[in-house]
Amino acid sequence: MTDHVYHVTEIVGTSTESVDDAIRMAIRRSARTLRNLDWFETVEIRGHLEDGEVEHFQVTLKVGFRLDELD
Amino acid sequence: MTDHVYHVTEIVGTSTESVDDAIRMAIRRSARTLRNLDWFETVEIRGHLEDGEVEHFQVTLKVGFRLDELD
Amino acid sequence: MTDHVYHVTEIVGTSTESVDDAIRMAIRRSARTLRNLDWFETVEIRGHLEDGEVEHFQVTLKVGFRLDELD
Amino acid sequence: MTDHVYHVTEIVGTSTESVDDAIRMAIRRSARTLRNLDWFETVEIRGHLEDGEVEHFQVTLKVGFRLDELD
Amino acid sequence: MTDHVYHVTEIVGTSTESVDDAIRMAIRRSARTLRNLDWFETVEIRGHLEDGEVEHFQVTLKVGFRLDELD
Amino acid sequence: MTDHVYHVTEIVGTSTESVDDAIRMAIRRSARTLRNLDWFETVEIRGHLEDGEVEHFQVTLKVGFRLDELD
Amino acid sequence: MTDHVYHVTEIVGTSTESVDDAIRMAIRRSARTLRNLDWFETVEIRGHLEDGEVEHFQVTLKVGFRLDELD
Amino acid sequence: MTDHVYHVTEIVGTSTESVDDAIRMAIRRSARTLRNLDWFETVEIRGHLEDGEVEHFQVTLKVGFRLDELD
Amino acid sequence: MTDHVYHVTEIVGTSTESVDDAIRMAIRRSARTLRNLDWFETVEIRGHLEDGEVEHFQVTLKVGFRLDELD
Amino acid sequence: MTDHVYHVTEIVGTSTESVDDAIRMAIRRSARTLRNLDWFETVEIRGHLEDGEVEHFQVTLKVGFRLDELD
Amino acid sequence: MTDHVYHVTEIVGTSTESVDDAIRMAIRRSARTLRNLDWFETVEIRGHLEDGEVEHFQVTLKVGFRLDELD
Amino acid sequence: MTDHVYHVTEIVGTSTESVDDAIRMAIRRSARTLRNLDWFETVEIRGHLEDGEVEHFQVTLKVGFRLDELD
Repeated sequence: MTDHVYHVTEIVGTSTESVDDAIRMAIRRSARTLRNLDWFETVEIRGHLEDGEVEHFQVTLKVGFRLDELD
Repeated sequence: MTDHVYHVTEIVGTSTESVDDAIRMAIRRSARTLRNLDWFETVEIRGHLEDGEVEHFQVTLKVGFRLDELD
Repeated sequence: MTDHVYHVTEIVGTSTESVDDAIRMAIRRSARTLRNLDWFETVEIRGHLEDGEVEHFQVTLKVGFRLDELD
Repeated sequence: MTDHVYHVTEIVGTSTESVDDAIRMAIRRSARTLRNLDWFETVEIRGHLEDGEVEHFQVTLKVGFRLDELD
Repeated sequence: MTDHVYHVTEIVGTSTESVDDAIRMAIRRSARTLRNLDWFETVEIRGHLEDGEVEHFQVTLKVGFRLDELD
Repeated sequence: MTDHVYHVTEIVGTSTESVDDAIRMAIRRSARTLRNLDWFETVEIRGHLEDGEVEHFQVTLKVGFRLDELD
Repeated sequence: MTDHVYHVTEIVGTSTESVDDAIRMAIRRSARTLRNLDWFETVEIRGHLEDGEVEHFQVTLKVGFRLDELD
Repeated sequence: MTDHVYHVTEIVGTSTESVDDAIRMAIRRSARTLRNLDWFETVEIRGHLEDGEVEHFQVTLKVGFRLDELD
Repeated sequence: MTDHVYHVTEIVGTSTESVDDAIRMAIRRSARTLRNLDWFETVEIRGHLEDGEVEHFQVTLKVGFRLDELD
Repeated sequence: MTDHVYHVTEIVGTSTESVDDAIRMAIRRSARTLRNLDWFETVEIRGHLEDGEVEHFQVTLKVGFRLDELD
Repeated sequence: MTDHVYHVTEIVGTSTESVDDAIRMAIRRSARTLRNLDWFETVEIRGHLEDGEVEHFQVTLKVGFRLDELD
Repeated sequence: MTDHVYHVTEIVGTSTESVDDAIRMAIRRSARTLRNLDWFETVEIRGHLEDGEVEHFQVTLKVGFRLDELD
């Protein structure tokens, strides 16, 4: 096995629906600019409130992706 | 812009259904006695077990609300 | 009331569906080998990514169970 | 079972005697203004010193109490 | 000396000027509704940005105040 | 000196009397099923409340014990 | 409202003047390469000393900015 | 893919040689009683001193292993 | 009022009796070499075990003392 | 380059003016008894309140200084 | 002296050999795309296991680098 | 057994070679001025970079030593 190096970036997804959905939103957006996404780790689950209800969930993730051997 | 002051209170919502639902329960109950709810932040996700199943989820939140200029 | 003693074990549930589901998976598996499960506490919410999507959620729990008086 | 909501408040008890006593002091004082106290969790154990001795112990607790269904 | 009990509340002050000013704002607002304020402890220093500048600082404080012997 | 390996287990002792007593309860119960107990470390001091009084203290400990060379 | 995604980056500002100034320095520098800066959060306040005086303050910030819908 | 469940156990390895060696010692000892070891995570690096030298390193690890489908 | 400066030192007290006693031991020993002790804060509560019983409690404290204006 | 060793000490500066000033107070006082001060790191920002105002700020710092090769 | 601004990035190095080697791997890979690397700080030491042995070490680092005055 | 009291001091060792070596450097230097060194605990593993390589490792340790009964 070759020794790999990964980069970790931090991203916040939001969703009016659910915590799971906010996680998926963040990952999909990351996938549009980053290749080789490998894992995520939840840093914080927050949300914005309006009229006494959850207006949207905000989930902060650390996302790890493998760096190519040569680029 | 005027400088605002917010108060933060800690509340635990429970739900037999899901984590999201326990969050919404806590927020709705807070909204019955507090005005100007602005944001929440998840502190802890726990639960009570019975007969080897999740009997209910318990989610502890910090809830922030804006204090009125004069009261 | 008698003074009880509890043991805490750490377990990771995975699910391709949701965070809630990964929690339930971990609890059900624990229930197959441990009696008197009493509570859980979420330690970490991570996940594995593939092709720019969440392939599965991994939720690490501390699970507490009551030790029998005599065994 | 109905889904309950709990409120968490933070209180500091002091005692010239012991840590246990400072905890009991804080709980008793809380009980004079709050109903349905359910659990506590120790946040910090500090103390004030005078003439090279512990003058009093200060224990900070989070105290959880159940909110009534309707109030 | 009598054994005292203190209550701790969490508050967020904001200021367009400085961190120190946001702290003072939060304390002054607390003083309008709470007596016997005794100490504060900084929990978080955040801020809101607009047009690439700090629009205002937000400082979250825990504020401790002494409860009266009888009330 | 031979290099040793230790295992760490997490246990919760309860006592209606005191924090010290809850620690001793947890250790004694551990000693009934584990050999070579070596140290403990307090993770959390909580308690259950009833009628505005501490009904029992709950102390969570990490307990370390030496594994035998061959078993 | 559309669901937004934010990116979080970590930056260290320095200033020979004050903590506030080090924060502003970091934000201004970020604004030269990043658009839509939205909030910051202080991670660490350190400093370098020389001849028994604060030579400069170093403040580490997490800075959040909104990602465009399409880029 | 089937949803897997992992168990996490905590173990302390010691070595008179190095931190790396203490990690390997802990893993090898775990492998004698546990199957399907999958990952480790370092919790603490400590050591015992004698005559002003490191007598041995003690590294505390969390070790994760996959539970079999049926056992 | 003059602005004061305090020094914080870390000390571990042990006692075969109780957590409270280990705290008092540490403070008394500190008082033999340090003047103007002002406060303590508990960092860690551990203990050593022998024959399945608590052999002694070890409590780590941060102890603050006021520095003289001129020394 | 020779390998250096640094010592870290903990100190609390107070100031009726500002957080920055409390930091400078602590550093200046340290410089009267310690040579080769190199860096500081803020551990805690607290304060004492009187009559509903900040009476003084208290900032706890870790201060690092280089030990001489031979002393 | 001019006031500098630094950026902090998070990276994971892996090595089949040692913790030190995983750190060096991560730094070398960073140096291929980033200029003016200044310091690192270890965030996490983990590893992957296979056949009861450490297959590779994974060390997560925060790496700080100085931003140019104008770019 | 007599009840002992220990003091904890914080020290940073550096080494161009390895993490282990930086730990040993710090311990040896401590041993030149302190007697009865008993244990250490790693607080932080950092390093300084130059020309895209680790120029030296910096390891911060807490070092505990037993205070004499009478001095």
